[in-house]
Amino acid sequence: MSPVSLEKRSALLRDSEPPMSVMEFEAAIRAVGPERYHDLHPFHGLLHGGKLNKGQVQAWALNRYCYQSAVPRKDAALMSRVHDRELRREWMHRMLDHDGMPPDEPGGIERWLALTDGLGLDREYVISRRGALAATIFAVEAYVTFVREQPLTVAVASSLTELFAPKIHKERISGMLEGYDFIDDHVMSYFKRRLTQAPRDADFALKYVLENAKTRDEQDACVDAVRFKCNVLWVQQDALYNAYVAGNIPPGAFRPGV
Amino acid sequence: MSPVSLEKRSALLRDSEPPMSVMEFEAAIRAVGPERYHDLHPFHGLLHGGKLNKGQVQAWALNRYCYQSAVPRKDAALMSRVHDRELRREWMHRMLDHDGMPPDEPGGIERWLALTDGLGLDREYVISRRGALAATIFAVEAYVTFVREQPLTVAVASSLTELFAPKIHKERISGMLEGYDFIDDHVMSYFKRRLTQAPRDADFALKYVLENAKTRDEQDACVDAVRFKCNVLWVQQDALYNAYVAGNIPPGAFRPGV
Repeated sequence: MSPVSLEKRSALLRDSEPPMSVMEFEAAIRAVGPERYHDLHPFHGLLHGGKLNKGQVQAWALNRYCYQSAVPRKDAALMSRVHDRELRREWMHRMLDHDGMPPDEPGGIERWLALTDGLGLDREYVISRRGALAATIFAVEAYVTFVREQPLTVAVASSLTELFAPKIHKERISGMLEGYDFIDDHVMSYFKRRLTQAPRDADFALKYVLENAKTRDEQDACVDAVRFKCNVLWVQQDALYNAYVAGNIPPGAFRPGV
Repeated sequence: MSPVSLEKRSALLRDSEPPMSVMEFEAAIRAVGPERYHDLHPFHGLLHGGKLNKGQVQAWALNRYCYQSAVPRKDAALMSRVHDRELRREWMHRMLDHDGMPPDEPGGIERWLALTDGLGLDREYVISRRGALAATIFAVEAYVTFVREQPLTVAVASSLTELFAPKIHKERISGMLEGYDFIDDHVMSYFKRRLTQAPRDADFALKYVLENAKTRDEQDACVDAVRFKCNVLWVQQDALYNAYVAGNIPPGAFRPGV
């Protein structure tokens, strides 16, 4: 372990900067999207442009299932730390959105499984995560751990990539329906539903973060949380690209057509 | 740290005992109630027998609020670890039961606050937990931690004190309505609702534990989890008795009539 440099020590001792105004803070959060949201990743260009074959789309849906199925655990981890009943009630909608509440509401995971079904993947295999890339699993579990361990406002901030989601969902719906004959309206129902859910959730979380991160350090940690979450998403795209576009499929991972 | 004794080492090396049959296992779980469920505590005898004054009942309701308000965090902690969507969906009912989902369902915490309101306690003071006994807070937070950290089946098992709850709730409803002129039907609505909720939850959890604890060690850990949970409840009664019956109110704790 290297000793703390003089430079670093003086930075640590320096008074924190004054907080950003609410408008500056919101702008700093929103600026993360155009820098590093996963819509910028070349894998998404290929996916939405109809440039992948069915096996590659299967690999995407199978890996992305791991993310979907981690989301309710992440949301429960957040609620397990919340003493404010109103915040828990608000956050509970997210769990209900993803896990559903039969018989009325199948939930987002069920809709995702309709997509993997539609792609001809075995449901038990998808749910088992046996064929998922290890990088995918590590990334999504890092998200659950982050939300369990970080200060509550920072944990809430990590959900704010939803601010950037509607654009990618719209592109995805039109791009995939046009580009692939094995994709139809029914299997895209997940994304259609998220077009209304994500903005409602993002509005609530943004308001919460803007109100509750008071010092400059807290604000910076919230902006970093959005970057962290973008990394969680980006790593998944990188892993998919490396395995299924560049062709370096790791041992044990899903092999299309096998 | 003392070295592991020879005796202990041979116990560790000894083969585990064979698992109990399902009937024996269920009987071992159910046997914990008559040994150490908190209906046996003298404080409950006083409470249900109409032997407490209003200040003592206030102290009980105020402290017990801490337990009520920890329960959804405990349930969320459990869900945050569950990969099985069906189990999460089932467990979500517990959170909905406690936190409610306005406008249709006020939830158990709201019903508990109707009780503390009815007893003339300030709602903000109750929710703040400022007047609660430290022993109460430590006990309920130990429960949240237990559920977050123990093996999942053991965490589920810790809820099984609900097997013993309907009896105490029935005694409490009739005893308190008879014994206190400051208690009416409305403020007892929490317990009435739990008469139907607790058995449904307990049946599910018992079935889960009986099916999922397979080795003798796992079964023993589940029985111990029920004992642990009884301790969480018992400690709260002891603390109430010591402070508000024996009269040793710790610094900072609620003082009736002040």
